Amino acid sequence: MKEVGAAMSLIRRGTEELLIEAELVEKLKSGRPLRVKAGFDPTAPDLHFGHTVLINKLRHFQELGHHIMFLIGDFTGMIGDPSGKNATRPPLSREQVLANAETYREQVFKILDPERTEICFNSAWMNEMDAAGMIRLAAQQTVARMLERDDFAKRYAGEQPISIHEFLYPLCQGYDSVVMKADIELGGTDQRFNLLMGRELQKHYGQAPQCVLMMPLLEGLDGVNKMSKSLGNYIGIAESPKEIFGKTMSISDNLMWRYYDLLSFRDTNEITALKAEIEAGRNPRDVKVMLAQEFVTRFHGQKAAIDALADFEARFQKNEIPDDIPEVRVAVGSGMPVFKVIQEAGLTGTTSEASRMIEQGAVKLDGERLEDRMRLLLAGNRVVLQVGKRKFAAVVLE
Amino acid sequence: MKEVGAAMSLIRRGTEELLIEAELVEKLKSGRPLRVKAGFDPTAPDLHFGHTVLINKLRHFQELGHHIMFLIGDFTGMIGDPSGKNATRPPLSREQVLANAETYREQVFKILDPERTEICFNSAWMNEMDAAGMIRLAAQQTVARMLERDDFAKRYAGEQPISIHEFLYPLCQGYDSVVMKADIELGGTDQRFNLLMGRELQKHYGQAPQCVLMMPLLEGLDGVNKMSKSLGNYIGIAESPKEIFGKTMSISDNLMWRYYDLLSFRDTNEITALKAEIEAGRNPRDVKVMLAQEFVTRFHGQKAAIDALADFEARFQKNEIPDDIPEVRVAVGSGMPVFKVIQEAGLTGTTSEASRMIEQGAVKLDGERLEDRMRLLLAGNRVVLQVGKRKFAAVVLE
Repeated sequence: MKEVGAAMSLIRRGTEELLIEAELVEKLKSGRPLRVKAGFDPTAPDLHFGHTVLINKLRHFQELGHHIMFLIGDFTGMIGDPSGKNATRPPLSREQVLANAETYREQVFKILDPERTEICFNSAWMNEMDAAGMIRLAAQQTVARMLERDDFAKRYAGEQPISIHEFLYPLCQGYDSVVMKADIELGGTDQRFNLLMGRELQKHYGQAPQCVLMMPLLEGLDGVNKMSKSLGNYIGIAESPKEIFGKTMSISDNLMWRYYDLLSFRDTNEITALKAEIEAGRNPRDVKVMLAQEFVTRFHGQKAAIDALADFEARFQKNEIPDDIPEVRVAVGSGMPVFKVIQEAGLTGTTSEASRMIEQGAVKLDGERLEDRMRLLLAGNRVVLQVGKRKFAAVVLE
Repeated sequence: MKEVGAAMSLIRRGTEELLIEAELVEKLKSGRPLRVKAGFDPTAPDLHFGHTVLINKLRHFQELGHHIMFLIGDFTGMIGDPSGKNATRPPLSREQVLANAETYREQVFKILDPERTEICFNSAWMNEMDAAGMIRLAAQQTVARMLERDDFAKRYAGEQPISIHEFLYPLCQGYDSVVMKADIELGGTDQRFNLLMGRELQKHYGQAPQCVLMMPLLEGLDGVNKMSKSLGNYIGIAESPKEIFGKTMSISDNLMWRYYDLLSFRDTNEITALKAEIEAGRNPRDVKVMLAQEFVTRFHGQKAAIDALADFEARFQKNEIPDDIPEVRVAVGSGMPVFKVIQEAGLTGTTSEASRMIEQGAVKLDGERLEDRMRLLLAGNRVVLQVGKRKFAAVVLE
């Protein structure tokens, strides 16, 4: 196990907030492996890089020799949404939960060492709890405290209904920490209230309260919005090597450093060295390629990374895409057909010219010949458009 | 079974509020025996006449041929107060609950027919409910709806803590109605919110909602405050024939009619006739004696009632207490020694004269010789004090 100062330095990397730092230092000083908890949804996982920020932090703790507990919150998932207001969330069966857990395993064990990761299901203890136990648990918190949670406070003030069972879920999540005897729980900054609930309940149950480590929400490929499926600005960990490579190459230089901090497994010193090299004149594209290769290697292996790079270079060299493509911003509202984007980006004078060029097969989108002039481009993406031999634009869709 | 009009007339007698009357009429018209629910505390019962207002109403339903369900809410009693804030309410054991239930039986079956009364314990179904069931139940109500309850609203506004489990208790009480398939629930006016919860939950569970019948809170012997143990203005149903008789004789004529309405089993027509007789000149004392005898008969049998009357008359005649004792009000604060009350009531000029009369054995309290000059008299009582042969006062202690 590393000495405490070095451990804290790794733990702090990319971390948004750590409560209470002095308590964590004390726990680390004890020298025993800490029990590290992180909770995940029981629904079918289709993880993108945004989710891996947390899993990478678990990996840091694993590297430091601590005990990782990957908790799947299947208890509430198997109840479904009992308010009946959300028809899209029917209860999951035991089989579905196990199938989802298996998918988690496959995806997550590309980052964590399976030998040293405990997968837990909170149904194991919550199914044993009776109504009286739930009432005793509910007695540990007040209504006022619960209404302090941001979303509850807003809904209550806005006269939006809050079902009473919604107050019970944070308590269940906190109780998980009690049963798991967590020394520290990791979560996103949006989980602050629930993470602190674990601390409070552990105190009620006579345990030392867990520390709470919050990771930031990762920006998507646009560098502005939170990475999310619905915004289309994501890299999925199940995507093809070509997609992962290409999407990584599309990000801005600034965002690249953010991704290095939060997503790369490279040492902080190495990253500092890379920054120095670029300031000394090295092409940032080389460093982006290194990041793209690291990602492809992680999820598809080294050979796939080599192939993806070869493919990427071949495509761009064949297409003679210059290094210094001008970047243009186009406001696409809720989506815009590509022929219109071409005109807005200044690649053609009119939309009919753009349509004609597409028909003639003279337009490429991210290096691929474009056939459908009506293809809709959505905000939050960055695409490279080529019209004819020499006209290029990197179009940031807003 | 009586015809619906006559039944409704009996049901309405003394009732403060009935929801929804039209629904109850429909249920009565069906001709089937209705399932009538009333819930009681699982703590050791020491019932006074105030409690019997509700039990008498159950008796009315029993007389009308309906099915009485006397529910002992032992589930929450066996949890205790899990917030740990009320040290005076430790959880009850199964044995204590059964012992208390037995005491209930003894006391309540002086009013209800044991053959046609079902005693229920809600632990029978609540102990079977798991945490998931509790969460599903909690999903049936909103936080805002719960905060409408008077005491919750006041505490929330006054920043007094409300534990979350307190929101679960009304839900449990309402769920009892679901399991018991109650057609109507009876309770005090202070139970309004909880009684209506039963209606709402039954609708959620696809049942016809129960009707809700609320009885008023009975005034104590002072005719002003709610009858309660702590105010001392009560008649306990376990009290001696002499106490019951004497306390009944001490009430005002106005209060006597209130007690006739809420506590007597006499027919409304009989009561109307008695009122007419008094207006025609009959001594109200005779009618009060009839009420006192009815009470003693109910709780101790007919012979005890005859003896109590004989004793009462002998005592008052022997002591030559005149019929028209002057009534005096004395403010006793948190209690006043009797020698001081005698002076305040104007029966002696000074407190030392009062003390001397007591020493000489010349003072009687409610017809009994008084020996202890320091005896404390408490607010909420009415006593007859006699000093020497001819000085009397009925003292209302305030």
